[in-house]
Parts: sequence; structure tokens; C-alpha cells
Amino acid sequence: MCALPVPREPLRRVAVTGGTHGNELSGVHLVRHWLRAPGELRRPSFAATPVLANPAAAAACRRYVGCDLNRAFTSGFLSAKASPDDPYEVTRARELDQLLGPKASGAAFDLVLDLHNTTANVGTCLIAETAHQVFVMHLCRHLQLQTPELPCRVLLYKQPGEESYHVGSVAKNSLGLELGPQPQGVLRADVFSRMRALVASTLDFVELFNQGAAFPAFEMEAYRNLGGVDFPRTADGDLAGTVHPQLQDRDFEPLQPGAPIFQLFSGEDVCYEGESTVYPIFINEAAYYEKGVAFIRTEKFTFSVPALPALAPTPTLVP
Amino acid sequence: MCALPVPREPLRRVAVTGGTHGNELSGVHLVRHWLRAPGELRRPSFAATPVLANPAAAAACRRYVGCDLNRAFTSGFLSAKASPDDPYEVTRARELDQLLGPKASGAAFDLVLDLHNTTANVGTCLIAETAHQVFVMHLCRHLQLQTPELPCRVLLYKQPGEESYHVGSVAKNSLGLELGPQPQGVLRADVFSRMRALVASTLDFVELFNQGAAFPAFEMEAYRNLGGVDFPRTADGDLAGTVHPQLQDRDFEPLQPGAPIFQLFSGEDVCYEGESTVYPIFINEAAYYEKGVAFIRTEKFTFSVPALPALAPTPTLVP
Repeated sequence: MCALPVPREPLRRVAVTGGTHGNELSGVHLVRHWLRAPGELRRPSFAATPVLANPAAAAACRRYVGCDLNRAFTSGFLSAKASPDDPYEVTRARELDQLLGPKASGAAFDLVLDLHNTTANVGTCLIAETAHQVFVMHLCRHLQLQTPELPCRVLLYKQPGEESYHVGSVAKNSLGLELGPQPQGVLRADVFSRMRALVASTLDFVELFNQGAAFPAFEMEAYRNLGGVDFPRTADGDLAGTVHPQLQDRDFEPLQPGAPIFQLFSGEDVCYEGESTVYPIFINEAAYYEKGVAFIRTEKFTFSVPALPALAPTPTLVP
Repeated sequence: MCALPVPREPLRRVAVTGGTHGNELSGVHLVRHWLRAPGELRRPSFAATPVLANPAAAAACRRYVGCDLNRAFTSGFLSAKASPDDPYEVTRARELDQLLGPKASGAAFDLVLDLHNTTANVGTCLIAETAHQVFVMHLCRHLQLQTPELPCRVLLYKQPGEESYHVGSVAKNSLGLELGPQPQGVLRADVFSRMRALVASTLDFVELFNQGAAFPAFEMEAYRNLGGVDFPRTADGDLAGTVHPQLQDRDFEPLQPGAPIFQLFSGEDVCYEGESTVYPIFINEAAYYEKGVAFIRTEKFTFSVPALPALAPTPTLVP
């Protein structure tokens, strides 16, 4: 595996972004709380910065007001000349790139942790770009070990040749926390507490690393994005059915060819026609109706993550 | 009890309204399906009319675009002179009043069945104005008897002295079907099927009545609206906590004085300070955050519903 370089210095510039989608309320209200009471984000070697990523969408309790902020961090959007016609989120992406990046620069934040909710039954899902991000894979492993009784899956979302477009991509390292199920516009105490604990464990891991801990190599199981499957549609594009009861809420469970995936309003079933077993996720996520995605197919695979070496001790000045 | 008059003629003008709130998708997609395939709404003595109540909100997948349509059927809104500044929903309320009413007139529809979803765990909830509506109470009883294995509660929402304001109030009889939990913007097959079956049973009941069936008196248990309870708030009006895990998802279960109702972000619990047991409903409903309602308190009570007499036989012309 082609591993990306690991940090050689302590991570001191860490941000926790919530409200990237304004109706995913765990992150919105965690960040608003931390802006009032920032002590929870402090560790001996650093203090993480809480950032309300999309204030206008959070105020309106909508995913976005102009366009999806979490798709706006492409070089095209970030480098284009600003125009009064730019959607709010394109302008906001440039602001966040200045605050947390610039993307792909040495000045960028060391780590961005981006907080999300989904209406799908994904439980705790850790979203990274690729398996090559050694530091992030060790962070995922650390989070998995904190609550071994709960499934905590790793999704590698980036498809081959695709440019990264999410808020965390402006930083040197990033991880998305995706917790569900939670309806849009609802703040569940159980999901809120789970996300808060994951953020605390993330900061603890960074602190361990900063203090000089080393982490051994391990085998990681993860799910790789194979692309979306749309709902059945009528000739005019309206829904002709919805997710089958036998698929609903079964995120990360194996789907075999021939199994039902949709129930048409006419009463018939639509079965999965793929050639091999896949692991559907984001099943019936509210925000994906407009993207033409009823669920995302993934494949499960295992790979080796190399050791994360300890930081070299800070040279002590010899008197 | 002061019973309202029962129908003396067959009910032939029946409407099923969906999408009164545009992001409650069971009704939106049932109505769109019936507009393409209306046969399901036909019975020997009548054919129900499917109505997409709020097309603009359904197209945007939002509760409303200007103001809440289901609060716009007051005499103030309906009788005021139209103005170009009227919110979309006020104009739409007047259109629906012309189509299904006029409210409180002899020309109004005999029955409107209005389809709703909630993010709260209410199961199947039948919403009527008051216990005095004898025909509607018999309809509720009929629906309860169709699925005795599932709880199917009756909520009497109208508070003393309050004017009715919902879409069904333009008709001579009305009932709201409120099914949950379902996130806004999500169409679950199980909820869709349950709502479809309830609509079919409603039309079957009307057909039985139209064919001359009589229905005996019975005792009804119902829940009466005692008003809402707001979330804990910070000084600037932001959320300071959310619904307690011990209350979340416990709609229609008894809440005792002293039991926890909110969990603050600071970690403390807030307990219920009422003097008697209540039955909270619409617990953590997404649409009620902006209305300042974390849940609605109800009291449970039992009352007698008088018999619903058979229609007099249609006089036969003597040759």
C-alpha cells in the first residue's frame, strides 16, 4: 500500500467543525456549546477550535441555503474569482479555506474533525478519504477500541480519480464522524452524547501522539464506496416506490444479488441485480433523494496499516 | 356530552389530503400515486378525491414555504381580502377552502382525511378536534378495530375557546392521520403501507355507513391536549439541552412529576415539575423546535360515544 507521510511534529492546530449541514443538529449544538464553554476541547499540548461551518444553514435549519457546502471545497470553487452571484456556500468555503487551510499548503490545520448526522441507521461511521492516510487510520482504530461493544465502521468514500471536495480536505488530516439514525432538525440526547465522546477520544488520541506515543501496525477492516443506486422513478422523475422493508435500516449488512431493494407503489418488488454481495449504506438518507441516491453500495475489505512511529523527542537546549 | 349532529345523508364528497406539510412524505407520495391511479380511492357509493394540499412545499421538500398551511384555515385568513403580500400558504388555504369548503357551509365536503407524519414515536395517532364529533369517533373506533394488535390512539387537540385552523376544518367532518416515527424528507415503506391501509379502512367505513349500517354506542379512551412544554434555553434563546433519553421515544407513556424530561449540555437533568401524571406526545418533533415545543402534554380520559344511527332508507318511487 502507498502510505501517505505521517506527522513529524505535534498536531497543535486542530478544528472541530459542526453544522457543515445546518440541519444535522448534533454538530450544530455541540459547536455552539463549545463556543460558550471551550474548556472541553483543551488538552495539555493543544486546544481544538470549534467552528460552526455553515451558520446561515444552521440558522435556517436546512442542509444548505445555496448549495451543498460539503461539495464546495474543490480547486475550481476555491480558486475562482469571487463573484456577487456565488452561492452562499461557495463564499463560505473560501472563508473556511482561509481559516483552516489553505488547502494543500503547509499552513493548513493539522486535523479537521467534521461532525455529521444521517437519517440512515449507520450507527457510528468514520469517514476517511483513503486507506493511505496512516495517521487517520490509527485515529479510527483508537476510536474503535474505545467502545468495542458498539460497531464503529470505517468508510473510505473517495472514488478513484475523484477530487476531494469536503470541508476536511483543506486540512492536512481529516476525519468525518457520521452518526445515525437521527432525523434532520432533531437533536437526540443519545446521539449527542455519543458524538461528544468520540470527539473527546479523538482529542485524547492526538494528545497521546503529541506526548510521544507510538502505535503498532494492525489490520483494518473498512468499506469502500462503489457508488449510489437511485430510487425507482416514474417517467416524469417522481418516485415510483421506496426502499424495501427488508433493506430499510440494514446499513452495513450484506446484500445478495436477487434480494429485494425497493417496493413499488404498485405493490411489486425490485430486486438487486448486481453480480456480487455488497454492503449498502446511507439507506434512505433524506438528503440524498435530490442527489438520486437511495443507498450507496460498498465493498468490505481488509488492509494493513503500518505502524505510526513516535515523534522524535524535542531537542533540549544544552546549556 | 354535547354531541354534534350526525350525517343524515350518504357521504359522497370525501377528500384525502396529503402534503399539507411538504416534507411529510407518506401523504405526499400516496396522493401523487392516487392522482396517477385513482381507482384505489373508489367505493360503490363514492370516489374520494386525492388532493396535494401544498404543492410548492412538497416540491421543495419543506414543511412550508411561507407559513404553516395547517394553521392558516382561520376565519381571519380565509375572509381577509387577498393581497400580493400574502404568504403562499394563505393564498393556498383560500383555494382549498373554495375546493373543499367553504368552511362551515352546507356546500362543504362531507369528510376530509388529512395525512401527516411526525419524527416522534407516536405510532398511529388519530387526530380529531373534540369528543363531540360522533361520526368521527365512530370512524376512529372502526380504525382501531382493524389492527387491534397495534396501538392506535385518539388525540383531541382542540383547546377550549380555540378556533379551528387546520385543513380539515373546512369540511363537515375531518380526521388527521399522524404516523411516526419518520424523518422529514424520508419515505419509509412500513409507514407508507400503514397509512395506505388506514385510508382504505376509512373509505370502507364510509361505504358501510352509506350502505345503511348502524353502529352501537361505545366507550372511547382518548388523549386531550394540555399544551406544549419548551426546551431549556440559554439567555439568548438557543437550546441549552434536549429531550432526556428517559423521555425520548416514550410518546403516550405516563410521565410522573419528578421524572427527568431534559438533559442539559452541562450534564444536569431537568425534571418534570407538574402536579399530576401526564402523557407526553410529539416528543422531539422536528417541526416544533421553531414553535418552542419539545413535547405536548396530554391527559388520558374516557367518554361515552352515542350510537351512530343508520341512514334512513332512500325513499323508493312508487310506480
